[in-house]
Amino acid sequence: MGSCHETGPKLIRCKAAVCRVPGEPLVFEEVVVAPPKAFEVRIKIICSSLCHTDISYWRSKEFAPSILGHETVGIVESVGEGAEEVAVGDRVVPMFQPNCRKCGPCRSEKSNLCDAVQARSFGMPRDGTSRITDAAGASLTNLFGISSFSEYTVVDVASIVKVDPNMPPDRVCPLSCGISTGLGAAWRVADVEAGSSVVIFGLGAVGLAVAEGARLRGAAKIIGVDLNPNKILIGKKFGITDFINPKEIGEKPVNEIVKELTKGGADYSFECIGLTSTMNEAFRSSKNGGKTIILGLDVKGSLCINTEELLFGKTIVGSILGGTKVKVDIPIFIKKYLDKELQLDEFITHQIGFDEINKAFDLLNAGECIRCIIWMDK
Amino acid sequence: MGSCHETGPKLIRCKAAVCRVPGEPLVFEEVVVAPPKAFEVRIKIICSSLCHTDISYWRSKEFAPSILGHETVGIVESVGEGAEEVAVGDRVVPMFQPNCRKCGPCRSEKSNLCDAVQARSFGMPRDGTSRITDAAGASLTNLFGISSFSEYTVVDVASIVKVDPNMPPDRVCPLSCGISTGLGAAWRVADVEAGSSVVIFGLGAVGLAVAEGARLRGAAKIIGVDLNPNKILIGKKFGITDFINPKEIGEKPVNEIVKELTKGGADYSFECIGLTSTMNEAFRSSKNGGKTIILGLDVKGSLCINTEELLFGKTIVGSILGGTKVKVDIPIFIKKYLDKELQLDEFITHQIGFDEINKAFDLLNAGECIRCIIWMDK
Repeated sequence: MGSCHETGPKLIRCKAAVCRVPGEPLVFEEVVVAPPKAFEVRIKIICSSLCHTDISYWRSKEFAPSILGHETVGIVESVGEGAEEVAVGDRVVPMFQPNCRKCGPCRSEKSNLCDAVQARSFGMPRDGTSRITDAAGASLTNLFGISSFSEYTVVDVASIVKVDPNMPPDRVCPLSCGISTGLGAAWRVADVEAGSSVVIFGLGAVGLAVAEGARLRGAAKIIGVDLNPNKILIGKKFGITDFINPKEIGEKPVNEIVKELTKGGADYSFECIGLTSTMNEAFRSSKNGGKTIILGLDVKGSLCINTEELLFGKTIVGSILGGTKVKVDIPIFIKKYLDKELQLDEFITHQIGFDEINKAFDLLNAGECIRCIIWMDK
Repeated sequence: MGSCHETGPKLIRCKAAVCRVPGEPLVFEEVVVAPPKAFEVRIKIICSSLCHTDISYWRSKEFAPSILGHETVGIVESVGEGAEEVAVGDRVVPMFQPNCRKCGPCRSEKSNLCDAVQARSFGMPRDGTSRITDAAGASLTNLFGISSFSEYTVVDVASIVKVDPNMPPDRVCPLSCGISTGLGAAWRVADVEAGSSVVIFGLGAVGLAVAEGARLRGAAKIIGVDLNPNKILIGKKFGITDFINPKEIGEKPVNEIVKELTKGGADYSFECIGLTSTMNEAFRSSKNGGKTIILGLDVKGSLCINTEELLFGKTIVGSILGGTKVKVDIPIFIKKYLDKELQLDEFITHQIGFDEINKAFDLLNAGECIRCIIWMDK
């Protein structure tokens, strides 16, 4: 274990943080990473950031033993047949949501739900098998089709975005999930326009990225709703103009305060928590003709809405990755950062080495961090 | 009573069919129609058609005594101050949904919910009072702000659309509600494109107009769902390619059959009935990334949806009048009819005189007619 060493042109033996027991600290092991098959790319990971979805999957009993990690950036190590759109040495971002550019949804402006992911079991490459095995030869679940908590991994080329090497790695990796979800939701799904009003339930990375997207579009009012009073300060950096802490408003429902602040309801209401109760509150906070964008997931929950309210031109829309078409949009996000329009630095609150990876779980769980970067070479 | 006779330049005494007791036959009475106030137009009605919403309001205990009727066409008799966009003698269609062209929603491409209607109590002119009184001087509720079951009525100019006099009156009046709702939903709300798949729950006038809109856009598959087997024949005229009768499919839910017919779910799913059960079925019939358009109203019902299903890019959207911006879209619909693109003749199944108006209620209740035209001069 320790540093990575190749054992020939084909297999790579390297270090990975394996989730053996759900909810327990990850365990460092030597794993074997197979060469890329057709339409696959093998990547040397530079760094990753931890996302709340990693924590949900870490707790789930469905997947272990598995390798987590899906917000990441790396260097192409080798390329399978048919994956020549990238070359060895390219800096790339793997995305859990592919963009093959050939299927119906990829060719349509209306959807980002590339058929490449629908044809395979979620989180696995096209053929449904993992390229990563443990020392005993047992397969490790390739979560999100990425598994970046390994020094090397293999990803489907449909999920690979080539990025400008001028982009600092720690700034680009949160773009591979949370930040793009928020920006995409504000720009693609809601299409927020100048002067409009926005309310955001939940000011984690996704919610703050929605605020940043709304700020850049010139929204006149951006209302943040969060139980954590520390979010006021960080929220202001991303353009939040009004803050509602549901703990501090007594009996009054949040939607009534939003209606007062916006004179009838927000143009765009975003739910970034994943609770049906806040989804309903988000819906009720939107004006007639307004749009509610659901970004959180409540697996067991049913969202119940009043149909008379819906009839007045209201929309509820869910999205994966905020409707982002990854090969089109990620390069745009990066350019906006390099042009100093888009703020990304403020999302990165912590930086640690790979050996400390379990600390990232503690930090995110405690609500102390927005994004913690985990460097493979530190 | 009988024919209309003016009693000076101001008041008009004329015949109207009044709803005195909810759910009981309308009663013919002489009523007094005041002159138009500012931003109002007094209209001589040519003909009306009966819509299911008239029947709902006829049964409601909230409004009597009232004058129903909102799918109609007439001639401008006089014009109030500030309503000079139309002139005496113009052929006009009054719409329950206004389009003042000045407010925020009217100037936006995203909404048809003109503020002119939101500022007033639903169904009344801007100042909340009716222009029609009975012989005893009591006010009669001005339903939908239209009340076309009177020889004369007064309507807000924001709700008035001037129409091409070449358009036959009986073909234009259903455009003032049901048909426009369906066409608008297909074109404005769903934006159906060539080759797409559509499922429509409920094949009344609205559902058939959705089919007509989808047919004209070149939808590849238009699935109709209705309990009435007689709808197959009429549905085919409007482009329905597949018919599902929920009574004839055993235990299998409709959404499973739709998924089989469309290989995974319809691109666009329309609910034109007004039941939360069919709304849910419509949602489940839509594909990932698909859109469910709710056109029916279930006043008491809550629509409960699975949030995991929603997350896969699904949209649920409600609309009033199918998102139609009346002063923009009605002239387009009329031109398409005159150019022989849009089918409207097939919607008109019955024609009667004003004196027979109660027969129209029986016909629509019995499901025997799509639209029954009620002529004032017959």
